[in-house]
Amino acid sequence: MSSSLDSPTIPNATHTINVGVLGATGTVGQRFITLLSAHPWFKIHVLGASPRSAGKRYGEVVKWKQVLPIPVGVGEMVVRECKVDEGWRDCQIVFSGLDADVAGPIEESFRASDLAVFSNSKNYRRNPHVPLIVPLVNPSHLSIIPQQRLLHTPPLQKGFIVTNANCSTTGYVIPLCALEKAFGPIESVLVTTMQAISGAGYPGVSALDIMDNVIPYISGEEEKIEWETLKILGGIAESDAGVKTFDMHAKHPLRVSASCNRVPVIDGHTECVSVRFKRRPPPSPQQVREAFSAFTPDCQALGAPSAPRRAIVVHEEADRPQPRLDRYFQDGAGVSVGRVRQCQVLDVKFVVLANNVSIGAATSSIINAEIAVLKGIVG
Amino acid sequence: MSSSLDSPTIPNATHTINVGVLGATGTVGQRFITLLSAHPWFKIHVLGASPRSAGKRYGEVVKWKQVLPIPVGVGEMVVRECKVDEGWRDCQIVFSGLDADVAGPIEESFRASDLAVFSNSKNYRRNPHVPLIVPLVNPSHLSIIPQQRLLHTPPLQKGFIVTNANCSTTGYVIPLCALEKAFGPIESVLVTTMQAISGAGYPGVSALDIMDNVIPYISGEEEKIEWETLKILGGIAESDAGVKTFDMHAKHPLRVSASCNRVPVIDGHTECVSVRFKRRPPPSPQQVREAFSAFTPDCQALGAPSAPRRAIVVHEEADRPQPRLDRYFQDGAGVSVGRVRQCQVLDVKFVVLANNVSIGAATSSIINAEIAVLKGIVG
Amino acid sequence: MSSSLDSPTIPNATHTINVGVLGATGTVGQRFITLLSAHPWFKIHVLGASPRSAGKRYGEVVKWKQVLPIPVGVGEMVVRECKVDEGWRDCQIVFSGLDADVAGPIEESFRASDLAVFSNSKNYRRNPHVPLIVPLVNPSHLSIIPQQRLLHTPPLQKGFIVTNANCSTTGYVIPLCALEKAFGPIESVLVTTMQAISGAGYPGVSALDIMDNVIPYISGEEEKIEWETLKILGGIAESDAGVKTFDMHAKHPLRVSASCNRVPVIDGHTECVSVRFKRRPPPSPQQVREAFSAFTPDCQALGAPSAPRRAIVVHEEADRPQPRLDRYFQDGAGVSVGRVRQCQVLDVKFVVLANNVSIGAATSSIINAEIAVLKGIVG
Amino acid sequence: MSSSLDSPTIPNATHTINVGVLGATGTVGQRFITLLSAHPWFKIHVLGASPRSAGKRYGEVVKWKQVLPIPVGVGEMVVRECKVDEGWRDCQIVFSGLDADVAGPIEESFRASDLAVFSNSKNYRRNPHVPLIVPLVNPSHLSIIPQQRLLHTPPLQKGFIVTNANCSTTGYVIPLCALEKAFGPIESVLVTTMQAISGAGYPGVSALDIMDNVIPYISGEEEKIEWETLKILGGIAESDAGVKTFDMHAKHPLRVSASCNRVPVIDGHTECVSVRFKRRPPPSPQQVREAFSAFTPDCQALGAPSAPRRAIVVHEEADRPQPRLDRYFQDGAGVSVGRVRQCQVLDVKFVVLANNVSIGAATSSIINAEIAVLKGIVG
Repeated sequence: MSSSLDSPTIPNATHTINVGVLGATGTVGQRFITLLSAHPWFKIHVLGASPRSAGKRYGEVVKWKQVLPIPVGVGEMVVRECKVDEGWRDCQIVFSGLDADVAGPIEESFRASDLAVFSNSKNYRRNPHVPLIVPLVNPSHLSIIPQQRLLHTPPLQKGFIVTNANCSTTGYVIPLCALEKAFGPIESVLVTTMQAISGAGYPGVSALDIMDNVIPYISGEEEKIEWETLKILGGIAESDAGVKTFDMHAKHPLRVSASCNRVPVIDGHTECVSVRFKRRPPPSPQQVREAFSAFTPDCQALGAPSAPRRAIVVHEEADRPQPRLDRYFQDGAGVSVGRVRQCQVLDVKFVVLANNVSIGAATSSIINAEIAVLKGIVG
Repeated sequence: MSSSLDSPTIPNATHTINVGVLGATGTVGQRFITLLSAHPWFKIHVLGASPRSAGKRYGEVVKWKQVLPIPVGVGEMVVRECKVDEGWRDCQIVFSGLDADVAGPIEESFRASDLAVFSNSKNYRRNPHVPLIVPLVNPSHLSIIPQQRLLHTPPLQKGFIVTNANCSTTGYVIPLCALEKAFGPIESVLVTTMQAISGAGYPGVSALDIMDNVIPYISGEEEKIEWETLKILGGIAESDAGVKTFDMHAKHPLRVSASCNRVPVIDGHTECVSVRFKRRPPPSPQQVREAFSAFTPDCQALGAPSAPRRAIVVHEEADRPQPRLDRYFQDGAGVSVGRVRQCQVLDVKFVVLANNVSIGAATSSIINAEIAVLKGIVG
Repeated sequence: MSSSLDSPTIPNATHTINVGVLGATGTVGQRFITLLSAHPWFKIHVLGASPRSAGKRYGEVVKWKQVLPIPVGVGEMVVRECKVDEGWRDCQIVFSGLDADVAGPIEESFRASDLAVFSNSKNYRRNPHVPLIVPLVNPSHLSIIPQQRLLHTPPLQKGFIVTNANCSTTGYVIPLCALEKAFGPIESVLVTTMQAISGAGYPGVSALDIMDNVIPYISGEEEKIEWETLKILGGIAESDAGVKTFDMHAKHPLRVSASCNRVPVIDGHTECVSVRFKRRPPPSPQQVREAFSAFTPDCQALGAPSAPRRAIVVHEEADRPQPRLDRYFQDGAGVSVGRVRQCQVLDVKFVVLANNVSIGAATSSIINAEIAVLKGIVG
Repeated sequence: MSSSLDSPTIPNATHTINVGVLGATGTVGQRFITLLSAHPWFKIHVLGASPRSAGKRYGEVVKWKQVLPIPVGVGEMVVRECKVDEGWRDCQIVFSGLDADVAGPIEESFRASDLAVFSNSKNYRRNPHVPLIVPLVNPSHLSIIPQQRLLHTPPLQKGFIVTNANCSTTGYVIPLCALEKAFGPIESVLVTTMQAISGAGYPGVSALDIMDNVIPYISGEEEKIEWETLKILGGIAESDAGVKTFDMHAKHPLRVSASCNRVPVIDGHTECVSVRFKRRPPPSPQQVREAFSAFTPDCQALGAPSAPRRAIVVHEEADRPQPRLDRYFQDGAGVSVGRVRQCQVLDVKFVVLANNVSIGAATSSIINAEIAVLKGIVG
């Protein structure tokens, strides 16, 4: 996509960027591998997994669950431990699909070794020096990286951690961002999610729990949405001393109320969103629809190759978006919105559909890395 | 249940009440038959269906879809047309499970023949003289029946129509009623539903549409919830001339915003509800929980045999209620509530689970009829 | 059921039989508890689980997954370890729902302590002295128990182990038994199963593996069916020295070929069975249907209270049995058969539906125990 | 694929072949459109549907259910009636996805107008002059077309009807063909299917019937498999007078027994197959595996662009093939086989997975048409 823009940014077409994948055997790791194996710039150089798998061929240790088969060559790669050594040191970028229970110290040690880590894990999302980036929304937050590097002793030259957001947050902040861009601050948001089982990893949700059922609870999920939204949609404040802080949307306090449900859907989070604007009178549903369609994220202009051509697809059919019909459009890199209409309680309500394993996970990390490359922060 | 209260109201234990079922071969009709065949007072006397089925044995024409087999004796009954004749005239009560496209004139003709009609169809729900009754909420609306009878020429002696509410409305107005009873008027409600496929009848939803999917739209459903809530939770105003009108909650305007979704669940509607009270400060989640548990609908005190022992079951587990685990409790005659907690945008939010084919449909009609018997309006 | 027969066997109506449940927190254990809490003779006296749960209230440690709530009183019981002590010594019967990886030594130690163990685990099914009993088929195999007791040093007075069969074996051997009873030996059987997820326990099958999918493999299942069928349908040979041996259907070698599949069904195994008889010409489909309907297992005559009134229900509808519609008939204690018709390759084919958590698991253990009581082997 | 082979067969690379689609709004019609819109040779020229849709834009009248959006340009095409007129006369090929209740006379009238019809409908499958072709198995049956044309008065120059097989037949005759090619005649086959809901069209199966369920019956399906297998795997006999007849595998009678089940899977039929060969001793499972892998259908050599690169993929994993993981491999144009092992009753058993909407339906028609083009029968 937008290939005319790509060429200037990767000066030498024959130059590829070596990347590593932490947590390569897990669900997110498999998704990283599938996407990276077809990537125009990135080349899989190292795969890291638990000590139990290290030293064995990837094809032997992975329980591969993707519809596409293991990419040619990857099955033969020998898995390494998630410890920095020469193999990893040759990587310009390290993607992390590690489980939260081990991600903290491992990602920290990779950063300390001056490696650029793009993490899908939750561990550093709330860190005041780590940007939490939804690539279609706030890549400008990358500007905090110099400060993050300085905190290290001695200051890092190249290393940093960038996280992407929780899958259910990612989907709905993209349209929220479009709305704030067009109509100014949002005052309150009420979101009810119907989340796919793949969001819980593998083996994840037991079939006995979810078949013919709804589970109206996902541990920690509502808190994540309510908090992450503020960090992502907020700006960066700078003190007189030049210290940067995420302002958490402080200038215009934003109230978020989330209700999270697990439903028997394999991929694709559906979210019912009601919004109240600060601006009175609020925009009409038709104006909202137009703002969604017009929304053009910066990463498209920059020429990130994995950015979707259309960030927000607005459906006019009464019964769309639907996960099964809309989750694979643009390989799941954009979001679908539909049913934009008046809300009797707040101002406007609509439905969002986002592919939780694509834009909601690995695809976001990869676009974040692409942006960092394009901005010269990496490589 | 509460058998000590029943005895005075049905003076002669050997006395049974003959009932008929309109639309007996449909999904709701089958449910009526299952429930009525085990009813302590009501005896199935006539089954009515389309002219195509009339004259044949019920067992021959029905595509029976209930887990319990066709009750003994019912399969042998000869189906009649839905036209008033002697068979129907012997009924003291007629339950209607007719499809909306035929229910209007048929139910009207039965009323005109001085029969008491308890309808699950939507056709007369918005009629200004027909009560729309959720039996655990507003049986007091039966007081409009004398006025309904007078509109007929000549005035009816026994005939009337009572409707029950849409399945998705029924579930959540029961806790709303408990809240208004305890804390005074509610100002606004935002409800997002995840509705079972059985709510769409049979064949209803195509498997190709709903497997591995969410459909974020049910035709007419949001309008029904938003309108019916006002009629049910509102009172009855009386003009100087003694004319009664449903006041649609007019004294304290109530704003309702509904978002309706179909999910791959067989039975049981799950609803995420956020509420804002008029009272400031609002009740705490704990007070709300207590109000739910303490809620005792009038129909229990009256001794309606099909009323649930517990109108609202409050779950303390983080992940309940769930349709598959909670929909059959008390044969689906009550509702389950859980996850009562603060809402960052309105005041309090919680999850409701109601069995759409029980309290959401046939069970409500039957309790409404029991109340009418107990109040002497029927029989 | 058949209460007239029960009274003589349990001499004193006020006398109840204390039972214990090993593996009480697991899926099968929960099912045992649900069934036993409503049992006319058996009283839950001890609940055993892992050391981690021991000493705590059952309600605290169990992740209860049954549709009926935890029976009154059971939630308050303090869980014990699965080690024989006074609590267990007061039990006349011990039911085991233990996982196979721990069942072996525990069940052995309970037997060694002279306790009567009825196990749902697979560990002793192939033991040459342990009967493998499907209660509607071969309760006569209980006759091996004296020999089993003698093997112990010193010989046991009351202790023994009885196992019931794998859930997928149980369902189809019942109609096979009916056929052999009516028409003599079967020569070969080809069975293809479509098994419910509950057969794999909890958490068992990942939703990501089974939603919108069929898994054409269940580890060890085909071997179990092929082997267990021979032990169950075979007789007991006795040597001149009086040593009893299971004859594995040796007089008329029986070939069994099983193909096992997991399907997205919660409860109820559906099995397509083709049979070739030794007798030429073979019985007609109509004769087969009649033999199924006429089949009366011994446990009914004995008066086992949990035996189904109808062992095999024969469906005439073209599209039955179906798991969702037929699995709960008679609380799942019988089996449903349908589509009896000619097989172009073997002789006759038909479809069997058996509730894997009822007759396929806990219900079988319980009926086995009832039979043992009625025959005076226990108590 | 095999592009080196394609070039000679379509002499002029700029030459495209106009095709029409009968039944364009239905499920199979939509699939034809999706596949044809990306076809290297074929160009959609006319779309035919019911008189109700005729005259309107395709995008207006279709209820599009494919994951890929309506191809560019197709939504704007004006739908025509399924009556031969100038629009249709310009087509060199007409694909039919008509429902069986209307396909008969329409397809006949198109043939009578000298058009080449490739039909997915069942109406002419049993016709003694119409070839029933699974493109990876018996394209040689196209040789009957001259005789079919002669039956018309006056004899047709270009018109004919070719049908493809039922979706459940198609899947398993491909491996059967490979086996007969390698090891000579098969004597008997026992097949148990687990079929996807998409095989029943749209709206097709009601969600209330299939969720959490298996339906062990599909009307007419077993008869189709048992009969079609003989026509497809059989040869063509020629009388002294030169009259050709399908020999229905007569030289080596083949007995087929099918048991068909509907399961809650969206796409992909899974089939458990047991086979007995005429040859004694029979081939070993390993030899069978090798024969599957080695199987090369003629249409590959011919250079049919839609033929799969690998006709039969043999899985070594114990639990494959699975519909969800394997149905989209090669766009569903090949079949997957796994679990090849000894059968205790017949000789060898295995599992087949075929995508019922691809090789089982539209893809087969299209490859059949490609073969006809390559053989010079069309165009």
